[in-house]
Amino acid sequence: MSAYRELERRFARIAKLRDAAGVLHWDQSVMMPLGGVAARAEQLATLQGIIHELLTAADMPALLADAAAPELDDWQAANLALMRRAHGHAAAVPGDLVEAFSRAVTGCEAVWRTARQNADFAMLLPSFAEVLRLVREIAAAKGAALGLTPYDALLDQHDPGRRSEEVDRLFATLEAFLPDLLQRVMERQRRRPPPLGLTGRFGEAAQRTLGEQLMRALGFDFHHGRLDSSQHPFTGGVPEDVRITTRYAEDDFTTGLMAVLHETGHALYERGLPAAWRYQPVGNHAGMTAHESQSLIVEMQACRGRAFVDFLAPLAQRTFGGEGPAWRAENLYRLYTKVEPGYIRVDADEVTYPAHVILRYQLEKAMIFGDLQAPDLPGAWNEGMVRLLAIRPPNDREGCLQDIHWPDGGFGYFPTYTLGAMSAAQLFEAAERAAPELEGSIGRGDFGPLTGWLRANVHAQGARLDSRALIARATGRPLDPAVFRRHLERRYLAE
Amino acid sequence: MSAYRELERRFARIAKLRDAAGVLHWDQSVMMPLGGVAARAEQLATLQGIIHELLTAADMPALLADAAAPELDDWQAANLALMRRAHGHAAAVPGDLVEAFSRAVTGCEAVWRTARQNADFAMLLPSFAEVLRLVREIAAAKGAALGLTPYDALLDQHDPGRRSEEVDRLFATLEAFLPDLLQRVMERQRRRPPPLGLTGRFGEAAQRTLGEQLMRALGFDFHHGRLDSSQHPFTGGVPEDVRITTRYAEDDFTTGLMAVLHETGHALYERGLPAAWRYQPVGNHAGMTAHESQSLIVEMQACRGRAFVDFLAPLAQRTFGGEGPAWRAENLYRLYTKVEPGYIRVDADEVTYPAHVILRYQLEKAMIFGDLQAPDLPGAWNEGMVRLLAIRPPNDREGCLQDIHWPDGGFGYFPTYTLGAMSAAQLFEAAERAAPELEGSIGRGDFGPLTGWLRANVHAQGARLDSRALIARATGRPLDPAVFRRHLERRYLAE
Repeated sequence: MSAYRELERRFARIAKLRDAAGVLHWDQSVMMPLGGVAARAEQLATLQGIIHELLTAADMPALLADAAAPELDDWQAANLALMRRAHGHAAAVPGDLVEAFSRAVTGCEAVWRTARQNADFAMLLPSFAEVLRLVREIAAAKGAALGLTPYDALLDQHDPGRRSEEVDRLFATLEAFLPDLLQRVMERQRRRPPPLGLTGRFGEAAQRTLGEQLMRALGFDFHHGRLDSSQHPFTGGVPEDVRITTRYAEDDFTTGLMAVLHETGHALYERGLPAAWRYQPVGNHAGMTAHESQSLIVEMQACRGRAFVDFLAPLAQRTFGGEGPAWRAENLYRLYTKVEPGYIRVDADEVTYPAHVILRYQLEKAMIFGDLQAPDLPGAWNEGMVRLLAIRPPNDREGCLQDIHWPDGGFGYFPTYTLGAMSAAQLFEAAERAAPELEGSIGRGDFGPLTGWLRANVHAQGARLDSRALIARATGRPLDPAVFRRHLERRYLAE
Repeated sequence: MSAYRELERRFARIAKLRDAAGVLHWDQSVMMPLGGVAARAEQLATLQGIIHELLTAADMPALLADAAAPELDDWQAANLALMRRAHGHAAAVPGDLVEAFSRAVTGCEAVWRTARQNADFAMLLPSFAEVLRLVREIAAAKGAALGLTPYDALLDQHDPGRRSEEVDRLFATLEAFLPDLLQRVMERQRRRPPPLGLTGRFGEAAQRTLGEQLMRALGFDFHHGRLDSSQHPFTGGVPEDVRITTRYAEDDFTTGLMAVLHETGHALYERGLPAAWRYQPVGNHAGMTAHESQSLIVEMQACRGRAFVDFLAPLAQRTFGGEGPAWRAENLYRLYTKVEPGYIRVDADEVTYPAHVILRYQLEKAMIFGDLQAPDLPGAWNEGMVRLLAIRPPNDREGCLQDIHWPDGGFGYFPTYTLGAMSAAQLFEAAERAAPELEGSIGRGDFGPLTGWLRANVHAQGARLDSRALIARATGRPLDPAVFRRHLERRYLAE
C-alpha cells in the first residue's frame, strides 16, 4: 500500500493547489480591478507550473506502477485509475507550455472583456491567435501520448472517456429532429397571444433577496458559500465554500433569477461530493457533462416546469410588488418557456440551445484540426448561425465574441452543455420514476425528494464513474436522445 | 552570473506564490464564509510548504555561494544578500513545522473571531496554546541557526536587522517621558471645554464615497486597487492590485475615515515599490517598521494635523449634511487629537498608543522565553494595563482578545507599530525640511509634495536598505525618540 499512500499524499497537495487557483479565478472574475490582471496571470501560471511539476515528478511512473495491489478497494482502484489518467494528460505536455498557456489565457480573457464590450474582434485577434496556437500544440501532444485525435484529447479533459465519434452521432440525431420540432413550437406559439412582459424597475437588492430565498429552498448553505454578481454567471470556489454568481438587469428579474437557480444546481453537486474522498481525484466531480446535468436538472427540468413556476409566481409578486395578469403563474410560465431563435447562447431557450452548441462544436473542431484559422472565425460563425438558426448576428459582440470559453482556453468544453441537457432530462425521468411525489413537492418549493435522489445517485458518486457510466447506472441505460426529445415535446407541444 | 540568474528565476516563483497567498488571505478576511476556513487553511499551508521547499532546495546553498560576483551591481548585491537572509530563515525550520504552523494559525484566527466577540478566552486557549507552542519551536530553531535570541529571530522576520536590545533602549526612553507628557496633555485638555460630539446616522455609502475621494487625493488608483470593509482594517493584495479595508460605524464616521487614510499610506508604499525589481526580494518593502511609518506619516503626521483637518471639515459637512459648531474645523481637530487612556489599541491616540505596544512587547517576549504561559495571559495583560495606563479592562474582549496578531502567529510584530510612529515623525520632519510648501499643500488637499518625497526616499528604495538604514539615509540620522517627543509636544502642548 505504501506507493498508493504516497500517491494519495501527493494528489492531496495537488488538489489543494487547484483549490487555491479556483479561489484566485473567482476573485479575478468578481473582485479584481482590471489593473491586477498581469500579476494574477503570473500567480495562476506559477500555480499551474507547480501542479504540473508535481504531476510529472520523475518517480511518478514508478509509483503509479507499484501502487496497484489486490488490497485496494473499488474506490481506491478508481482513484488510482484517475491518478494515472491525470498523469497521462500532464506528462504529455512540457511544463513551460503549461505555464505559457496559463499566462496566455489569463491575458486573453482580460482583453476579451473589453473586446466583447466594443464588439471588436480585431482587438482580440492577436492574443486569441496565440491561445489557439498553444491549444493546438497541447492537443497534438496529448493526442499523440494518449492515442486520441487532438480534439478528443481536449474533450477528454472536460468529460473523461467522451469521444467525438459519439458526440457526432448524438448531435446528428438532434440536428435531424430539432429543426422540425422548432418549427412546430413556433407555429403553436404564433397561434396564441404572446405572453405579457413584466415591466418595472427590479432593484438588485430585492432580486438578490429572492434569489437567496430560493437558494435556501434548494438546500444551499450560506455558511459554506456566497452569491455575488459577475459579467458571466458561474460557479467557483471549493466544496466547503461554493461561490455562485449571477448578473442583475434592473428591467428584468427573470433571467438573473434563473441563473441563480442554474448555478445553485452546480453548487449542490460540489457540496454533495463525497467528503471521505475530498482532495483525492475520485472525490472530484465526474466531468463537465455531469456538472451541467446538475445545473440543468435544477434549472430546466425542475424550475422551468409548471409546478415550480406556480410556486414562484406569488413569491415574485410579493418581492417586487407586482400586480395584474402579467404576474400570474400562467403568464410567468409562458415567459419562462418562450422559444425564439436568438444570437446569444446564454439567453437561449432549451429548444434552440443545442444549435448554439453544435455550431461551437463544429467550429472548434475545425480550429483544432487547422481547417479554420483564427482570423476567419467571425465569418464562419455568422454563416453557421444562418445555416442552423436562420439568423445573422449584427456584430461580433452578439456573434463570436459572446463566450468566455475560447479566450479562456476552454476548447472541447462546449459539447458538454448539450450532453448535460440530455443527461438532465434522462436523470429527471429516472428520479420521477423513483420518487413519484417529486413534482408535487417541487410545487410546494420542497426540493428534498429531487436533491436526495441526486445526492445518492450523482453527487456522492464523485468521479468513481465517468459521466457516461454514471448516467447509465443512475437511469438504467446509456444517454438516449429520445428522452430529451420526449421532454421537449411534452413541455412545448403538449395539449 | 548564471547562478545569480537562476536564483532570480527561483525567487520570482516564490514571490508569485506569496502573492497568491496574499490574495487568499485578503479573501479570507473580507469575503470567505466561515465554513470555508478549514479548506482555506489547507490551501495556505500547502502554499507555505511549497515556498519552503523552494527556499530550501538541496542546491540552494551552492547557488547562493556561487552567485557572488564582481559584476553584480548594488541592487543585485542587495538582492543576493536578501536571498541569503530568506534562505537562512527558511532553512532553520523543517517543512512539516512550517505547514503545521500555517494550518494552526489559520484555524486559530477563525476561532479568535468568535472568541473575541464572546469575550471568551477559554474558547481560544487550546488553539492559541498550540500556536504559541509552534512559535516557540520556530523561534528556538531560527535563533539557533541565525545566532540570535529566539525573540530576536522573530523580530528579524518582521523588521530585518532590528534587535530587542535597541528596542528595549528606545522603549525605555518612551517609558521615561510619556507618563509625564500624558499627565500634562490631560491637564491641558481638562482646562478647556470638551470637544462637541458629531451625532447623526452616517450611512456606509456616504462614508465610502468620502473615503474614496480622499484616497484619490492621496494618489490611490482604483484601476489598481479596491476599498472594502472587514472586521479589522488592513492592507492586502499585491502592488498592482492593492486592497485596503476599513470598518464603518453608523454613529461615527471619523474612525472609519481615519482607517482609510492610514491604510492608504500602506497602499501607496506597495504601489511605489520599484517595478524594475518586482518579484525579487530587493523589490519588496523594507519590513514592517518602514511599512507602518508610511501609514502613520499619512494618518498621524499629515491627516491629523490642523492643515488637513481644515481641508477635511467642509468636505465632511457637505457629505453628511452636517451643520453647527460641532462641524467646524476647530472642533473636528480637537476630536481627532483627543487624548484619553482606553482599552483598545486600534482606537488609541498617539500619546497613549506606545503604552499598548510596550505592554504587548513585554508580554510576547515573556511568552517566547517561557516566562509567561498561555493560560496566564489575561491576568498578565490586565496587570500591565493597570501599570502602564492605570485602567483595567472589564473583560478579555477589551483586553487580550482584541488583536488578531497573536492568534495569527504574528509574534515580534507589535514593536514595529511604535518604531513606525517614531520613524514617521522623523521622516515627516525631513520631508518638511526638503519641501517647505508641504504643510500648505496638504491644507489644499494636495499630497503631491509629501508623496513625491516619500516615493523617492522610501518607496522606490524597496528593500535595498533595512528600515534602520533607510530612515538614517532619508533623514540624516538614526531613529531618535527626541523627534517623536518634539512632535507630540508641539501638537498636544503648544500654545
